[in-house]
Amino acid sequence: MANKITTRDTDYSKWYNEIVVKADLAENSAVRGCMIIKPYGYAIWEKMQAELDRMFKETGHENAYFPLFVPKSLFEAEEKNAKGFAKECAVVTHYRLKNDENAPGKLMVDPDAKLEEELVVRPTSEAVIWNAYKNWIQSYRDLPILINQWANVVRWEMRTRLFLRTAEFLWQEGHTAHATKTEAIEETKLMNQVYTDFVQNHMAIPVIQGIKTESERFAGAEETYCIEALMQDGKALQAGTSHFLGQNFAKAFDVKYATAEGDLEYVWATSWGVSTRLIGALIMTHSDDNGLVLPPKLAPNQVVIVPIYKGEDQQKKVVEVAEQIKLELSNRNIRVKFDNRDNFKPGYKFNEHELKGVPLRIAIGPKDIESGTLEVARRDTLSKSTILREEVVDYVLDKLDQIQKNLYEKAKDFRDSHTTEVNDFESFKKIIEVKGGFISAHWDGTIETEDAIKKSTKATIRCIPLKGIKENGKCVYTGKPSTQRVLFAKAY
Amino acid sequence: MANKITTRDTDYSKWYNEIVVKADLAENSAVRGCMIIKPYGYAIWEKMQAELDRMFKETGHENAYFPLFVPKSLFEAEEKNAKGFAKECAVVTHYRLKNDENAPGKLMVDPDAKLEEELVVRPTSEAVIWNAYKNWIQSYRDLPILINQWANVVRWEMRTRLFLRTAEFLWQEGHTAHATKTEAIEETKLMNQVYTDFVQNHMAIPVIQGIKTESERFAGAEETYCIEALMQDGKALQAGTSHFLGQNFAKAFDVKYATAEGDLEYVWATSWGVSTRLIGALIMTHSDDNGLVLPPKLAPNQVVIVPIYKGEDQQKKVVEVAEQIKLELSNRNIRVKFDNRDNFKPGYKFNEHELKGVPLRIAIGPKDIESGTLEVARRDTLSKSTILREEVVDYVLDKLDQIQKNLYEKAKDFRDSHTTEVNDFESFKKIIEVKGGFISAHWDGTIETEDAIKKSTKATIRCIPLKGIKENGKCVYTGKPSTQRVLFAKAY
Repeated sequence: MANKITTRDTDYSKWYNEIVVKADLAENSAVRGCMIIKPYGYAIWEKMQAELDRMFKETGHENAYFPLFVPKSLFEAEEKNAKGFAKECAVVTHYRLKNDENAPGKLMVDPDAKLEEELVVRPTSEAVIWNAYKNWIQSYRDLPILINQWANVVRWEMRTRLFLRTAEFLWQEGHTAHATKTEAIEETKLMNQVYTDFVQNHMAIPVIQGIKTESERFAGAEETYCIEALMQDGKALQAGTSHFLGQNFAKAFDVKYATAEGDLEYVWATSWGVSTRLIGALIMTHSDDNGLVLPPKLAPNQVVIVPIYKGEDQQKKVVEVAEQIKLELSNRNIRVKFDNRDNFKPGYKFNEHELKGVPLRIAIGPKDIESGTLEVARRDTLSKSTILREEVVDYVLDKLDQIQKNLYEKAKDFRDSHTTEVNDFESFKKIIEVKGGFISAHWDGTIETEDAIKKSTKATIRCIPLKGIKENGKCVYTGKPSTQRVLFAKAY
Repeated sequence: MANKITTRDTDYSKWYNEIVVKADLAENSAVRGCMIIKPYGYAIWEKMQAELDRMFKETGHENAYFPLFVPKSLFEAEEKNAKGFAKECAVVTHYRLKNDENAPGKLMVDPDAKLEEELVVRPTSEAVIWNAYKNWIQSYRDLPILINQWANVVRWEMRTRLFLRTAEFLWQEGHTAHATKTEAIEETKLMNQVYTDFVQNHMAIPVIQGIKTESERFAGAEETYCIEALMQDGKALQAGTSHFLGQNFAKAFDVKYATAEGDLEYVWATSWGVSTRLIGALIMTHSDDNGLVLPPKLAPNQVVIVPIYKGEDQQKKVVEVAEQIKLELSNRNIRVKFDNRDNFKPGYKFNEHELKGVPLRIAIGPKDIESGTLEVARRDTLSKSTILREEVVDYVLDKLDQIQKNLYEKAKDFRDSHTTEVNDFESFKKIIEVKGGFISAHWDGTIETEDAIKKSTKATIRCIPLKGIKENGKCVYTGKPSTQRVLFAKAY
């Protein structure tokens, strides 16, 4: 394994791709724009799923599963939603292949097996789900419905990048139905908070909570709540969205409920999702020029033990101690791997585990056996310490905790130092170009201004921060009055 | 809720469908042949997934994720496999919809967005996975590869039934690569054993382990190991298969490895899977004319507590005790639900939980509070007992264990009493027609005989049992010599 990867300064985009591939997280497949998530990458996704699933259930949600296909007539029912996704749909038109008579051993689409109605491979499931909710909801007693789905979705993107933008991706999508507008908005905010807690506490990625402007809103939503993170190249990444859908889908699918008083009212809706894209955010937030850096809470292996020896005598002693330490750590629910492969040298293993982002590496050699010590290396700081063997469990537990916190703090420092208050458009252009990051600036609230700034700088409004300070100011582009700063950035 | 469902004797097929729908497990969707798995049904699938996933990992497998789509050229690479699935493929031909100019608000497939190569929605993933393995495998050091995938697959079945046969279903598919034939066969057998343990110990369904005849084998396999269960209507259901694929896929995708001696050899393959179809087997094995019956290990709620009271005074006392019992049971990791809805009467709740198959029901009324007792009803036997309140935890733990065992024993008794040794074809026809179940009979080993029996009786060879006794006999149809009885049945 050639450990050297392209540095961030040399080519950030190449650096990212090399980490994904060399750390064995994912690779491109034979299918245009679709990736293969390899076992090491999938193990991270499983850890993310487990925690998110726990948080969803704790907040009263249940899982269910809805069809992969959306009949075209359902897909087009909610016009804005359909319009937003129509341009990137995979469409099933036939249900059979047959032998190609002109090419022995080859198959061709059977023209006799054309579907009466085309099926769209779901880019999102509001349509198919609200068509079902119509039959599930009669009275206020049937509400709320709080359902989540873990699924694959397909959006036929033209430019794809592993994890960040792929034609097929894995995600969860929550779809809830409520009797009142207030309750639906509360749900939207609740899930925005759940995502915030997960991304900050588990992924160690600081985020800004906010709402989207009209032009960045989910197609079919009345309001989109989001969390925005900042990557090391100064570009923003949307890390999770929850949408207040108003009564748009209820009206499109005629979903009404009888109130306690017997009146018929349209149902209120939300939807919310995060995807494997988050793994892209994880990589770009923490990793360095030596490879992947993983926060302990999501690392498939939190600790790796590498034995160092020459000859069978040393090997036997070292392996015995290593096995013992592995057991002690496992017993405390620390995920530990003993890298006992005998066809690779310790130096090679060090490089590999560094590249793969294992938070802590323990090396044990004959001298350590004599002195009752161990060498422990931190992936985040690349620092090494010699510790007493009997202290290993407490030391590891403590350090894993420190690494988790340190990664968050480091990312937060970067984010804060790359968030700039700007009051004139010349500075805006210069900062976006030279420094990057978030620009906090006043905006007059119009789509026209947003578009003009985007055309001029490629920066978009990432969000109107929820915790923004109300202050009177002048739009950075038009000079018109504004009451709150918004966050601009170039974005993934 | 009308609790009365069609009885098995009246209409077995209708009975099955009513249980699926009325117990809120699944329903048909707007998409032909695709089902919606509702939260209660999905909760059972989650329990199955968790245990299977644990067993897969314990036997050294890792999860990964491969693309939903298979380009037609990859799909057709392994000819037998392609031939086996070509007739039931959903095919993506276009990647965009556009506004239909002749119908305002409607969308149509954009003829300019035709794919150069059609994509098959995976009916199974051997092709797309072996195309990837080609790049993963160079030397014997890269082997074995032991990967599993949790995914949705699509097979365009003409006649569909909830869980048993749906166009889209959820499953897991293991795909392993090995250096030797022996190792691949061992893996195939190992997974056959894992499935057996899971289905018998967790689902309480007794199975026969066996191998398939050539005509029932997976398309592309050299040998298919299976487990076969018997449903209450006397029809068999294939509950899980593991395939020894030989070098078929390695040859189709040119996957070779360098041996320790430096020679190049084709890689050996296996694949194995179980699907949401198992939920159909679960329902049909244990349920009765009152509704669903669930084995405790897979029941989303193992115990339900129903309070009985008149007036607020009684309510307060009863609820207090119920909450206390819920806590005591939860603390012992028993999944318990306190059904405290105040808009339904106890009788209605009893019926509902019976219909939904909750293994144990605890009723608490004012008299129980006075006497320090509780009434506990078992779903499997429909028997009731009055127990002392302080014994509730031990009693429940013991009874859940008994119910799990009783369901297995009951199903095994049914299976055994519906397995008939038959030595002449007249008896064969009569028993298949009148009694149903498995017929154990000698067979001459030819496809012709198998076909003739199928044509005459609709019974197929479910498997050649692994634990069958070697004995000389005469084929039940041709009278030709045979060395082992095989199992015939009509099948799902």
